[in-house]
Amino acid sequence: MNLEVHDATLFTAQTPLKLARGGQLGPITIHYETYGRLDSTKSNAVFVCHALTGDAHAAGWHPGQAKPGWWDSMIGPGKPVDTDTMFVICANLLGGCQGSTGPGSIDPTTQASYGLAFPILDMRDFVTVHRALVAHLGIKKLLAVVGGSLGGMQALQWALSAPQDMRNAVIIAASSRLTAQNIAFSAVAREAIMRDRGFAQGHYLEQGTSPDAGLSIARMMAHITYTSESTLGRKFGREPHKDDLVHGFGVDFAVESYLKHQADVFLDRFDALSYLYLSRVMDYFDPFARDDACRLIGADPVAVLVCSFSTDWRFSPAQSLRIVAKLERAGVPVTYREIDSGMGHDSFLMPIPPYHDVVRAFLTRAVSQIRPATSLDDLGGRS
Amino acid sequence: MNLEVHDATLFTAQTPLKLARGGQLGPITIHYETYGRLDSTKSNAVFVCHALTGDAHAAGWHPGQAKPGWWDSMIGPGKPVDTDTMFVICANLLGGCQGSTGPGSIDPTTQASYGLAFPILDMRDFVTVHRALVAHLGIKKLLAVVGGSLGGMQALQWALSAPQDMRNAVIIAASSRLTAQNIAFSAVAREAIMRDRGFAQGHYLEQGTSPDAGLSIARMMAHITYTSESTLGRKFGREPHKDDLVHGFGVDFAVESYLKHQADVFLDRFDALSYLYLSRVMDYFDPFARDDACRLIGADPVAVLVCSFSTDWRFSPAQSLRIVAKLERAGVPVTYREIDSGMGHDSFLMPIPPYHDVVRAFLTRAVSQIRPATSLDDLGGRS
Repeated sequence: MNLEVHDATLFTAQTPLKLARGGQLGPITIHYETYGRLDSTKSNAVFVCHALTGDAHAAGWHPGQAKPGWWDSMIGPGKPVDTDTMFVICANLLGGCQGSTGPGSIDPTTQASYGLAFPILDMRDFVTVHRALVAHLGIKKLLAVVGGSLGGMQALQWALSAPQDMRNAVIIAASSRLTAQNIAFSAVAREAIMRDRGFAQGHYLEQGTSPDAGLSIARMMAHITYTSESTLGRKFGREPHKDDLVHGFGVDFAVESYLKHQADVFLDRFDALSYLYLSRVMDYFDPFARDDACRLIGADPVAVLVCSFSTDWRFSPAQSLRIVAKLERAGVPVTYREIDSGMGHDSFLMPIPPYHDVVRAFLTRAVSQIRPATSLDDLGGRS
Repeated sequence: MNLEVHDATLFTAQTPLKLARGGQLGPITIHYETYGRLDSTKSNAVFVCHALTGDAHAAGWHPGQAKPGWWDSMIGPGKPVDTDTMFVICANLLGGCQGSTGPGSIDPTTQASYGLAFPILDMRDFVTVHRALVAHLGIKKLLAVVGGSLGGMQALQWALSAPQDMRNAVIIAASSRLTAQNIAFSAVAREAIMRDRGFAQGHYLEQGTSPDAGLSIARMMAHITYTSESTLGRKFGREPHKDDLVHGFGVDFAVESYLKHQADVFLDRFDALSYLYLSRVMDYFDPFARDDACRLIGADPVAVLVCSFSTDWRFSPAQSLRIVAKLERAGVPVTYREIDSGMGHDSFLMPIPPYHDVVRAFLTRAVSQIRPATSLDDLGGRS
């Protein structure tokens, strides 16, 4: 399906990014992937925003890897985000650790990694950077911005900040503001990281230490909130990890083994400082706190699809419904679906047929509206 | 109300406790408190079982302390567990850290603290020790065994193992077996403690270190599960901790400040090894897994009150209802109430009027049945 991997330096030390909360940052390199082909009118581009611990590799296979991209069930030929008709862009977030500039990058003024000197980010900074990437690609208007969880929050922010950039927005399993419980879980995860002696006040890269214990704890705890009680019960119940239950403080139950495995895999692919920076952006996110939040989108309505999942207790259906109510009050046309799923927040990553049907239907309509008379042959065929 | 504080050495090296999972332990000293007066027939004694991080100081005031016992709203003159008519016993658990023998005690064979050499405990061991204490006090039959959370689980185990010991049992906000999600949260808490370098493989007492970071993380996470999303939202919402929100990784939101305070207070009163040992007892608890679990109580029914709380998502009403169903199937008379409360699992510690009414009514009936013709004057009056 024509997977391409790129890096783009979108801001430099001379032309830095002006940060939403003040200050500036540059240079900024963004690592991104694309799938499918941009059509001749550059009107079929879909920007996919990844979640807290996601990355630019959303779909397809990299040579030698055991798994495809994190949203491969959603993106590809004939899939809901159909690369036969759409050109898909997914960029690793500013502040991330998978190729884009983040706290682990070298600060040109000190020649050491930024660490905690990296600036505190805002959801609007993600949007500014992604807008720069879209401009870099010569795209004037996106067919859609699509995201789940933190990615859905970005899609919402983008639709509010620059509705003129897109025709459609898909906001999945997201929230327009975290609850106190959400913030509490995030706070404990950050504490686990920062209190790990290996964190070394954020200088672990220079000091050769690593806050592996803290990051593992953060991931295990977060993972519990990503899944549902019923999923854990169905998958593991009270089954012992091995037939011969040892009775101690090791891994006695299957659910403990599963969590530890999740943590180990996570350590290989994620960075503790990125976890701090990106999770904090979610805590602060509260776009509707501004009275004029919907001024732009109210004047230039984007068609919005909002999806939630029945057992998602991290970002519950009530949180999605708040987004729907705020947008509808501003005159924005919103399609809302609560998908029945037992799998909690992580449902947004799963190939649940009614969920995929809703996204597919919404995007098929979107494609039909940009080129009612265009034949698929114009796209160069299935790749 | 006649508060007394005692220590009793119930088992010795020569007459050790035979542990439910094999092995033995001695000496064992149990620290306990009593409130009210034992009547002349020793028939008005109520045994109160504390929760995971509770202790023997359930009610009344110790000189110089800023707070009364942890269940002072429930226990006292004129309160639901009425010390004008009842004699109340509360003992610090075996494995605890508030005066009873636990992993921080000195192992007489090594003259060092047990640490992780302390044996893995079972709910049945708690019952055996508490039975020994009751015998030590010369009490043949308890008026009631009462407990919330882990304390309710003990009350259930005791009623199943030795129904002849009691006339009534009150099982509040408990579970007859933890869900996979419950075990997952416990597992992450234990990992946080054991991966803290200050834990020193359990030898922190000798080494002069302490796993404060790990124990704090464990407590903060557990605290989130003890309260409800709505309580956190109502109490804190998204309020900043200070008027001037700093935007960093410190304590920016009020809910973060609250959690950190909870953790700091907890460090002063609880021990990391006790946390490991007592929480693991809960993971393993599953009395109805034995086919003959109800053989004794079915033959010698105890009157049981089971209470749950509507927003308790740690030990949900469904978990209480499972206890009710299992007992009723065995012919045990059970009164069940789900109390409407927004405060989650911690509701069992709160003076919620309908909750206190149910407990009061159940125990008033219990008292009336043991001495229909006894005047309160026999008890020596209100103390």
